[in-house]
Amino acid sequence: MVEHSGLDIMCLNKYGPSSSSSSSSDAEKKLFSKLKVSLTKRYPQKNAETLSAQYGTNLLLIGVSVMLALAQHGPAVKEEHLLTFITVLMLMQLVWMLCYMIRRERERSPLPERDAHAGTSWIRGGLTMLALLSLIMDAFRIGYFVGYHSCISAVLGVYPIIHALHTISQVHFLWFHIKDVIKKYETFERFGVIHAVFTNLLLWCNGVMSEAEHFLNNHRRRLTALGYANISTVEVEPHCNCTTSVCSMFSTSLYYLYPFNIEYHIFVSAMLFVMWKNIGRTLDRHSNRKRPSTRSPGLLLGPLLGLLALASSVTVLVVYLIHVEKSEQTREAAISMFYCYGVVMLACMCGASGAGLLVYRVEDWPMDTGQNPSRTLDTELLLGSSLGSWLMSWCSVVAAAATAGRSSPSFRWTCLAYSLLLVLEKCVQNLFIVESLYRRRREDEAMAPEIFSVTAPYDGIVNRAYETQDKRCAPLDAEQSENRQGFGRKHADVPLHAGNRLNVTAGRKRQILKNITIFLFMCNISLWILPAFGCRPQYDNALEQETFGFSVWTTVLNVAIPMNLFYRMHSVASLFEVFRKV
Amino acid sequence: MVEHSGLDIMCLNKYGPSSSSSSSSDAEKKLFSKLKVSLTKRYPQKNAETLSAQYGTNLLLIGVSVMLALAQHGPAVKEEHLLTFITVLMLMQLVWMLCYMIRRERERSPLPERDAHAGTSWIRGGLTMLALLSLIMDAFRIGYFVGYHSCISAVLGVYPIIHALHTISQVHFLWFHIKDVIKKYETFERFGVIHAVFTNLLLWCNGVMSEAEHFLNNHRRRLTALGYANISTVEVEPHCNCTTSVCSMFSTSLYYLYPFNIEYHIFVSAMLFVMWKNIGRTLDRHSNRKRPSTRSPGLLLGPLLGLLALASSVTVLVVYLIHVEKSEQTREAAISMFYCYGVVMLACMCGASGAGLLVYRVEDWPMDTGQNPSRTLDTELLLGSSLGSWLMSWCSVVAAAATAGRSSPSFRWTCLAYSLLLVLEKCVQNLFIVESLYRRRREDEAMAPEIFSVTAPYDGIVNRAYETQDKRCAPLDAEQSENRQGFGRKHADVPLHAGNRLNVTAGRKRQILKNITIFLFMCNISLWILPAFGCRPQYDNALEQETFGFSVWTTVLNVAIPMNLFYRMHSVASLFEVFRKV
Repeated sequence: MVEHSGLDIMCLNKYGPSSSSSSSSDAEKKLFSKLKVSLTKRYPQKNAETLSAQYGTNLLLIGVSVMLALAQHGPAVKEEHLLTFITVLMLMQLVWMLCYMIRRERERSPLPERDAHAGTSWIRGGLTMLALLSLIMDAFRIGYFVGYHSCISAVLGVYPIIHALHTISQVHFLWFHIKDVIKKYETFERFGVIHAVFTNLLLWCNGVMSEAEHFLNNHRRRLTALGYANISTVEVEPHCNCTTSVCSMFSTSLYYLYPFNIEYHIFVSAMLFVMWKNIGRTLDRHSNRKRPSTRSPGLLLGPLLGLLALASSVTVLVVYLIHVEKSEQTREAAISMFYCYGVVMLACMCGASGAGLLVYRVEDWPMDTGQNPSRTLDTELLLGSSLGSWLMSWCSVVAAAATAGRSSPSFRWTCLAYSLLLVLEKCVQNLFIVESLYRRRREDEAMAPEIFSVTAPYDGIVNRAYETQDKRCAPLDAEQSENRQGFGRKHADVPLHAGNRLNVTAGRKRQILKNITIFLFMCNISLWILPAFGCRPQYDNALEQETFGFSVWTTVLNVAIPMNLFYRMHSVASLFEVFRKV
Repeated sequence: MVEHSGLDIMCLNKYGPSSSSSSSSDAEKKLFSKLKVSLTKRYPQKNAETLSAQYGTNLLLIGVSVMLALAQHGPAVKEEHLLTFITVLMLMQLVWMLCYMIRRERERSPLPERDAHAGTSWIRGGLTMLALLSLIMDAFRIGYFVGYHSCISAVLGVYPIIHALHTISQVHFLWFHIKDVIKKYETFERFGVIHAVFTNLLLWCNGVMSEAEHFLNNHRRRLTALGYANISTVEVEPHCNCTTSVCSMFSTSLYYLYPFNIEYHIFVSAMLFVMWKNIGRTLDRHSNRKRPSTRSPGLLLGPLLGLLALASSVTVLVVYLIHVEKSEQTREAAISMFYCYGVVMLACMCGASGAGLLVYRVEDWPMDTGQNPSRTLDTELLLGSSLGSWLMSWCSVVAAAATAGRSSPSFRWTCLAYSLLLVLEKCVQNLFIVESLYRRRREDEAMAPEIFSVTAPYDGIVNRAYETQDKRCAPLDAEQSENRQGFGRKHADVPLHAGNRLNVTAGRKRQILKNITIFLFMCNISLWILPAFGCRPQYDNALEQETFGFSVWTTVLNVAIPMNLFYRMHSVASLFEVFRKV
């Protein structure tokens, strides 16, 4: 070890013939030279982690504090300041990504280590779609700037250009590098990755804030129109006329694209966070195999019910948005309708998740305990993002209980039921998703200690034997099994029979689970669509506002609704993962 | 495996001579009986964790939503409701603790597994002190209730009695059971422990809310007295006269005891959380040894400077509290004084932590990577609780920058410097603490694979040899070494010499580290005392309020100040741990 010899030299000096004072100054010189070596040497991992996490957090907090100042509409802090800050951060991320890609290109190590669980191809595909919508949004922003360029700051034009560039290169980065396990220049790359994580988080925060402000302004305008309140809305309009005819079209369309942009940024930051966690990690070759996705026969009830849920949600959304703006009566009717719809929907979802859990209780599949930062993060994010909507629900419960006995709107009881079901539904669904992610299929276990070949196209020997046997008892699958029959091998009779029987019931259970998963998947999409496009009865029902006051309740909503939106999108992604895995 | 045979039975039915429909109904019967067995059997650990975490979180959120409603001072939700809820939770925790202790008593397994790292004796001692102060607070509350019993709810009398009972039995539980690693009735105990964790967290929230409200009322009264604003304060006074003469004494003294009660509850919940994490854990015998604490010669500069810091803090506190209530001039002078004091203090702390990090860079002690939930939690809590005060600091920076060029108070620049230094100080101190917690002493490493005896009173053979050699080059330690000389054993010459030299420089570095740690320890106590007892210039300086508005800024402060208080106390505890370990 290097440090040993260094220490020896220092200590030898102590024992040399020179006087104590000169030896100590000598030792100090050595100490400084050693320090220089030590600072340029590899920095301990734990410290690098802490340091980079602190760097990223502070970046985010700077941005958040500027946003808070901006929300006050004071004279000193303007939107330009915030956008300049974000633009600089995006440029820094661009430079880092470029450096990283060039270095990777130069290295050309034959097989760089890659984490098979990080960023599956379907999630990258989904993100590419979201990124495309973000690019359209940037185009609208540029169009808006062109129309008003004579009287608004140039930053508002530069920002969407840089953002578009950032989006394109980030998607490229996600496709080709997100699975990389970095083992070189760890400390430097750690800062680069965490910078990217928090830049995306900041972009998410910015989107959430813009959307919340827009929604709140709409809400106030609506309240004023209905004669409830007379709160002046603060909307900053440019002080000149638009030179093109489509400016107002641009600015209104923007708000329909915001939800996609918001989800895009938070998902990217979650993926980059997994990459950060993977830096310097030694992969376990056994657990780092990708599971092939399973066939899905007998999918009928789940997708059908799911489509029904989706269709009814869109109907509810349209009816709600039309009716809530009209008179007092239609407003109350629209809110009642929403809660009734919600109660039915959530009850079905609770039932489905509960049934899924029961299937797991019957089927004693073993748990998978391998290390997998991606899965750990998924679990934590699910639980963490539930917090917001749980708080919102409990506040509704308290409000419904507090207004008991007084002249309260007709939907008070359905609101109470809706809130309680929302809490229950998230609990049960979280349990179902977590259990599904941590379960291992039985054949995995049987195969795991035997086969290490990464190139094997199917699940392995034991599995193929199962499939061959499958044909005997389930002739419907004949076509698919036929192709693989040639690979089938006979084992001893007893395990084969056991496997055979196992497979029959397991197949039926798997079918149930698949149906449940696809149903939940579509329900979660429905419940994302509603608040994302403006159906937020929590603002309109005036029940909670009475108990908590306007400012506390809007603060709660401004925190809870973005968390809830993220929760829904995140469970959609997790449920898709579960669907492929079951 | 049990489940295997169960599956076999079901599958055999399939292959029996009965018709398909009857066999399926048979299979369903079996399924249900199997389900019954499976539900009563051991529940998978991951699920039990998720379920219990969700239970606890929702308990807390119910409490928080009631608190939010309470903060509005509406007619429906009263303090009695909240206190009843908390009392019920405390009673449930009491029942669980009783059950647990009785069961443990009955079992009498010769050596229950215990996690050596959880709840060291000095932290339990500290908590006992805090608990005593909490008991005094309960006594005051009971006295207050007795005085006003004719016109206030009985809940206000029951609550302190149950709280006192809860405190006493919880301290008993901490002393005798906090290190237990639970391996029986895991699912049930998991719920019990998490219930205890969140009951304490809720008590913490309640304390924080009461204190914040009290402080805000004081602040408003002060502003009104100075003629700044005319905000009516909402303080609920009982509607009758006190029957004893000391009621007002009770109610004012309460607020001096709040800070201790608050710290007590959050520390207990952190310790119980470690216990929850330990449930079902298999301890690694090697890493689960307690490190003996080291001797500390040459402690002079650190404690002296620390005492100086402590004394000056108390002075600043007293001067601040007196001057801030007087005229406009003295108010501004008091705030200026606070910021100047803060800049000097934080600069010294940055210097000290930085020096500590440099010592670590020179000394290449290996990292300790053993599993240790207690340490992981410490690290995460340090980083997590820094967030609040970082946000506060960045807001101050933004405010100072935004008010530039306008007529601003004289302390604007010192406020800016103070805020930036606060961010830097927390970053560097966190790095120092994290690195210290994850470092291993060299002799540990040398000894680790050789000695497993838990009863060895000293560090082991190698270490004793060092100590004996120590005497030759450092005759000052003669007395201490003399006692142990008898145990000294001669090894081969070469390692001895290396060890000897190593020890000389290592001893000096350790001395530096000890001094730094004790200095930081006292500085953190100082910085806890100031806000805990009312020195909060963030309220008084009106700088941030101008930029962020009253409601946003008080929300930020109400979140950030309790987090900051916890951060200071937590780093005091961590630094004590570091001090014993270095």
